[in-house]
Amino acid sequence: VITASTQNVARPGMIELAFGEPDPALFPAADIAEACHAVLADGGGEALPYGANAGPAALRRLLGERLTTLERHAVSADETLITGGNSQALDQILTLFCEPGDVVLVELPTYSLALGILRDHPVHVEAVAFDALGLDVDALLRKLDEVRHGGRTVRALYTIPTYHNPTGVCLAGARRRALVELCAERGVLVLEDDVYRELWLDKPSPPSLWSLAPRGVVLRLGSFAKTLAPGLRVGWVNGSTEQIERVAACGLNDSGGCVSQFAASVVARYLQDGHYDAQVERLRAAYRERRDALLAALAEHLPDGCSFTIPGGGFFVWVTLPGSAPGQEVLPLAEERGVSFVPAVRSHLDGYDRGLRLCFTMYESGQLAEGARRLGEAVRAAIAQS
Amino acid sequence: VITASTQNVARPGMIELAFGEPDPALFPAADIAEACHAVLADGGGEALPYGANAGPAALRRLLGERLTTLERHAVSADETLITGGNSQALDQILTLFCEPGDVVLVELPTYSLALGILRDHPVHVEAVAFDALGLDVDALLRKLDEVRHGGRTVRALYTIPTYHNPTGVCLAGARRRALVELCAERGVLVLEDDVYRELWLDKPSPPSLWSLAPRGVVLRLGSFAKTLAPGLRVGWVNGSTEQIERVAACGLNDSGGCVSQFAASVVARYLQDGHYDAQVERLRAAYRERRDALLAALAEHLPDGCSFTIPGGGFFVWVTLPGSAPGQEVLPLAEERGVSFVPAVRSHLDGYDRGLRLCFTMYESGQLAEGARRLGEAVRAAIAQS
Repeated sequence: VITASTQNVARPGMIELAFGEPDPALFPAADIAEACHAVLADGGGEALPYGANAGPAALRRLLGERLTTLERHAVSADETLITGGNSQALDQILTLFCEPGDVVLVELPTYSLALGILRDHPVHVEAVAFDALGLDVDALLRKLDEVRHGGRTVRALYTIPTYHNPTGVCLAGARRRALVELCAERGVLVLEDDVYRELWLDKPSPPSLWSLAPRGVVLRLGSFAKTLAPGLRVGWVNGSTEQIERVAACGLNDSGGCVSQFAASVVARYLQDGHYDAQVERLRAAYRERRDALLAALAEHLPDGCSFTIPGGGFFVWVTLPGSAPGQEVLPLAEERGVSFVPAVRSHLDGYDRGLRLCFTMYESGQLAEGARRLGEAVRAAIAQS
Repeated sequence: VITASTQNVARPGMIELAFGEPDPALFPAADIAEACHAVLADGGGEALPYGANAGPAALRRLLGERLTTLERHAVSADETLITGGNSQALDQILTLFCEPGDVVLVELPTYSLALGILRDHPVHVEAVAFDALGLDVDALLRKLDEVRHGGRTVRALYTIPTYHNPTGVCLAGARRRALVELCAERGVLVLEDDVYRELWLDKPSPPSLWSLAPRGVVLRLGSFAKTLAPGLRVGWVNGSTEQIERVAACGLNDSGGCVSQFAASVVARYLQDGHYDAQVERLRAAYRERRDALLAALAEHLPDGCSFTIPGGGFFVWVTLPGSAPGQEVLPLAEERGVSFVPAVRSHLDGYDRGLRLCFTMYESGQLAEGARRLGEAVRAAIAQS
């Protein structure tokens, strides 16, 4: 029996660093309410009918303008289609661009719930190595050769190059260029999950793979889930004009129109109202302070043998555990002490479990520090048990 | 270049009887605005975070109560999952419940844009005959035997038994029972598109296949697209508790939560506010008058050799043309005269084109009568040309 109205409900006394969500206290609810009022004032003209297959024209234009400025790379409305968020977009792209039996590559670790979306499609998911500089492009080349020799087709690569989930790592600049060159040469479609781009904390985000690649090589998935509110379920995909037309003409969009028409119209109005820059800056300030608090507390409380990433943006810090303390064994010890995390095993395909994902966005600094303290105790307890 | 914000934009001077949409003038925009205001008043508590995988608890409960009353058949919240409308639901169900190579059956004619959704999936679509009483269950039995002898699997049947799109036909009561018995016996999953149930015009709708079948045989797809507003993109699916749990646990919902959380929260609030009964009654009254106006004008203006259905609900009248006037040949002649329709060929797989779909919901009675007059002229012109 499922009785909740939201996906993740914190347990009493638990600091839920497992949840990978923006802080609800930072949702711009009043400005969204104002935008709702505005789009419904004229009888719901654009917001309530079936939407244009590719989404509201105003939102596509505003997004093109914003991304062009943000990336110093021209993005047109015709290269932009409005989605129901990155999960919906990934699901739909797998339906439309993959054939049964195709190989889809992922970097490991990867976003654990993307693996669930991939599993629902008749494709083979295989892994590419990943290190402190992001996806290992030499390993990708070897993998492409290996699959080709086996007579199969690598259709796509799903990757999160910018403030990676779960590690917070940013793909190094030279690797970005090498990655898009290799995928262009080999005809591999890159599915770039770019959901954290606006949430850089130290310096502006590196160029997207989309902006570096020839048109047609990369589909870039962006979203308002982390910067406005996840429940709106509004995101977008950037691709070549042909790719965008293909998605717009697909059965789902041709029948129901834009998959998030009402919420997308609200977001368009919110952007027109000029609130977005201030909202993103407010999130950056809050999350910068929280990241710093968590990192300082981890440095203080984690035992020797642990290490952790220092993310330049996004939501996550990745802690690498000593070999004697796998994530799944640490988790119950941590939860007993009132802190949760996502163990590495969920982000891997092969049982590897020497890590854990901590999200720093949902709690104030004091609670993050307490969470790190509890985690340090749990890791020590796991080591002592082993 | 796609510049529109809505899916269908009427051409100047054209009575667009091809559009299958509710009348925007009948959208309850003010009440939806009030519901938006209410769900955002507390900071967006349930509407803005990631939603519960199966949708907001309040909406599932309210829907269960409404459907239980409407159908005199118990429907629980646990048998209900909130979707992004019937197109999204159909797309997702095909992804989750079908294997590559499966056969999916449709009645012909069928909803033309559902064929597009089916084509995006690696299934074989095959046809079952349909007549004035709806899907021909004897023909279904023969088809199931034929596919079985060919060594293939019929996984599912997509059907619109109640105020069928495009014909307006209601599946006869005895056939409803025979259909679910046969599909239960043969293990065929029935995908019941039940989007017009609330919009009966003469007498309450017949029981859904869902309510007649053992649990697990039918997935019933319902929607607020026709009764509230299509752009909200909120619908639901009823299935067995196990089927609902399977959809709720799928990759898309496990990652992004409810696919329409914000709009679904708004709809829940709208239902709580008690406006829905009056809204549906208002639609019935308007659409009843319009249907009657269109039928009277068709009787007056169509030439001998044509016939048309008398729908008891829904959106559509189906005109059967004389053999000398295929729908695709009549269409340009009709558009020259300022009226559009959907030719039969789009709702068939085999090129059959002796029919046309007219939607009676989008225009006032006077315009519908004028549309019928223009259509009559076009059919006469087509016959004269042949």
